[in-house]
Amino acid sequence: MRKVTVELGDRAYDILIDHHSLSKIGLELSKRVQPSQVAVVSDETVAALYSEQVLRSLDKVGIKATRITFPAGEKSKSLVEYGRLIDRMIERGIDRKSAVIALGGGVTGDLAGFASACYMRGISYVQAPTSLLAMVDSSVGGKTGIDHPLAKNLIGAFYQPRLVFADTATLDTLPAVEFHSGMAEAIKHGVIRDSGYFSFIENNREAILNRDPEVMEYLIAKSCQIKAEVVGADEREAGFRAILNFGHTAGHAIEALTNYKGYRHGEAVSVGMVIASQIAREVCGFSKEETARLRDVLNQVKLPTTLAAAPELSAESILKAMYSDKKTEGGTLRFVLPVRIGETQIVQVTDEALIKSAIESVSY
Amino acid sequence: MRKVTVELGDRAYDILIDHHSLSKIGLELSKRVQPSQVAVVSDETVAALYSEQVLRSLDKVGIKATRITFPAGEKSKSLVEYGRLIDRMIERGIDRKSAVIALGGGVTGDLAGFASACYMRGISYVQAPTSLLAMVDSSVGGKTGIDHPLAKNLIGAFYQPRLVFADTATLDTLPAVEFHSGMAEAIKHGVIRDSGYFSFIENNREAILNRDPEVMEYLIAKSCQIKAEVVGADEREAGFRAILNFGHTAGHAIEALTNYKGYRHGEAVSVGMVIASQIAREVCGFSKEETARLRDVLNQVKLPTTLAAAPELSAESILKAMYSDKKTEGGTLRFVLPVRIGETQIVQVTDEALIKSAIESVSY
Repeated sequence: MRKVTVELGDRAYDILIDHHSLSKIGLELSKRVQPSQVAVVSDETVAALYSEQVLRSLDKVGIKATRITFPAGEKSKSLVEYGRLIDRMIERGIDRKSAVIALGGGVTGDLAGFASACYMRGISYVQAPTSLLAMVDSSVGGKTGIDHPLAKNLIGAFYQPRLVFADTATLDTLPAVEFHSGMAEAIKHGVIRDSGYFSFIENNREAILNRDPEVMEYLIAKSCQIKAEVVGADEREAGFRAILNFGHTAGHAIEALTNYKGYRHGEAVSVGMVIASQIAREVCGFSKEETARLRDVLNQVKLPTTLAAAPELSAESILKAMYSDKKTEGGTLRFVLPVRIGETQIVQVTDEALIKSAIESVSY
Repeated sequence: MRKVTVELGDRAYDILIDHHSLSKIGLELSKRVQPSQVAVVSDETVAALYSEQVLRSLDKVGIKATRITFPAGEKSKSLVEYGRLIDRMIERGIDRKSAVIALGGGVTGDLAGFASACYMRGISYVQAPTSLLAMVDSSVGGKTGIDHPLAKNLIGAFYQPRLVFADTATLDTLPAVEFHSGMAEAIKHGVIRDSGYFSFIENNREAILNRDPEVMEYLIAKSCQIKAEVVGADEREAGFRAILNFGHTAGHAIEALTNYKGYRHGEAVSVGMVIASQIAREVCGFSKEETARLRDVLNQVKLPTTLAAAPELSAESILKAMYSDKKTEGGTLRFVLPVRIGETQIVQVTDEALIKSAIESVSY
């Protein structure tokens, strides 16, 4: 078992990463949270695979538990589904001393985390991520929320879990495309903060694609450690935390323009990182060699590095979509740009020709 | 102008209390918050009375502002109305750097405060209370939220405003019953923390009923100061903050059993304080004389001290409703009980006969 701590004063919490550990989640909860009762919240797909294990584990330590499910998919991050989840929590008698386990991927963590944040003005919750994206990224840092028809994650809260409990064995049932998508955030962590970690991914690409338990355990711990450092320094994204948005400025635009269907989040971020690295070559002297290394490692873990899946997207339309993102400030685009692998800067870029040319370098 | 500061570290904020000050709210916002834009949120009744003043004041300092209204009444503290408010905030272009002014009573503060808490994971908001209840109580302390059909304030957040801005001139348009209801919380503050303040209310009851500006300004500042001290010591109601619940254990039960129609919140709290003081006589030696002083001052500000308005309520039914309140812990009732005026204890009371007899002393 590997342990990473997110240092946030009286809201500090541990991330525990281990293989075949889901059967021990009850024991950890009884030690750390001592809830009066637990709601195990997951989508129907994940519930069918893993909720029995979790319920048994809670039962073993004498914690009363109830399962609440919702339909799988991003569509469940809605105000309607949120209200339904709250209804069920009341029906099942969840009270101030109860806890929620968000068992699943990013959607589950966001929805169940936000319900926990606001139920009786905040009850304990535990993230039990079962997707690679959730393990390396979304389960850590306390961002919770739901979508609005006009904007993703528009309604939400910063609310930290009491524990993140990742069983790497759950990756075995993850569809390949989801696995690859999760790798985009891991590679991002290497680029923004840790060249050694980036090299580790380059050198272990085969083991990673085979989901080798030991390699994955190290990888997840390393990503969590980097994210924990960043979140610990800037919990509410006042400044520094923005470096986690490397690849996301263009990535979000690509996702939005393809109606969240053309590219998965990690896939769009992958293309976005290539676009950012092209801009960085001009703006921060990011080298041609490292640009190539980034593109190569993305390709090696089966991530797209071009807009081949959306040839209809023009550089102009992507540029326009970037301006309408909620992260724009005062009408200027801000990019997280690598100086070299392991080090980034946040730069306001006003040269639209440069941005368009970077987008065109990945266009079809 | 009187100023009270709520000491909450980097979330500290001022409460400004003054007569005919609404025309200066723009100036204070431009100094303290510098929002890119402001949404002035109020119910239709208050909007008709005061929103123009606020919009003009913002316009005068060059802050772009937009008015958003919702139907008056507790019914608007719903997930549906919450969603509508968020929709309108998006339509009007509210962004991360914008602020919300919650202009109105407790419902407005709770609803608009909760929208601010979750919009883009939290934007600035200002409480501009226009009811006495909101001025002395609900606008201070950061409790925001909406109701669920099964429980009041079930969905919400602790989220502090950037400023509380109370114009005591707005009390002139407050219906008398609402004014009296607000006095219950002021009297509560005297009982739990400050016998001098309690005496001030006793000695100034005529001026209070006449809504004398100077007396009301002092009273509101004093109540805010007491609430600010309590909230500053225990923001998230881990323990000490519970003393603010004096009169609320029975009060909530009476409100719930009369479907929030028989008694206004302050009226139910008034009866609840009398019940608690009866229990305190047995449990903490609260004197007969001070019990009478409390009942007298409540009557003098036209608050009920009996269940005359709900003769159908039995002591048994009130006892049962108290047990189902969300503040019950481990099946035991906890009461905030005065030892003497100005000093309270939190006591677990298991003697049901004693509680019933206290309720019967106010029954009809």
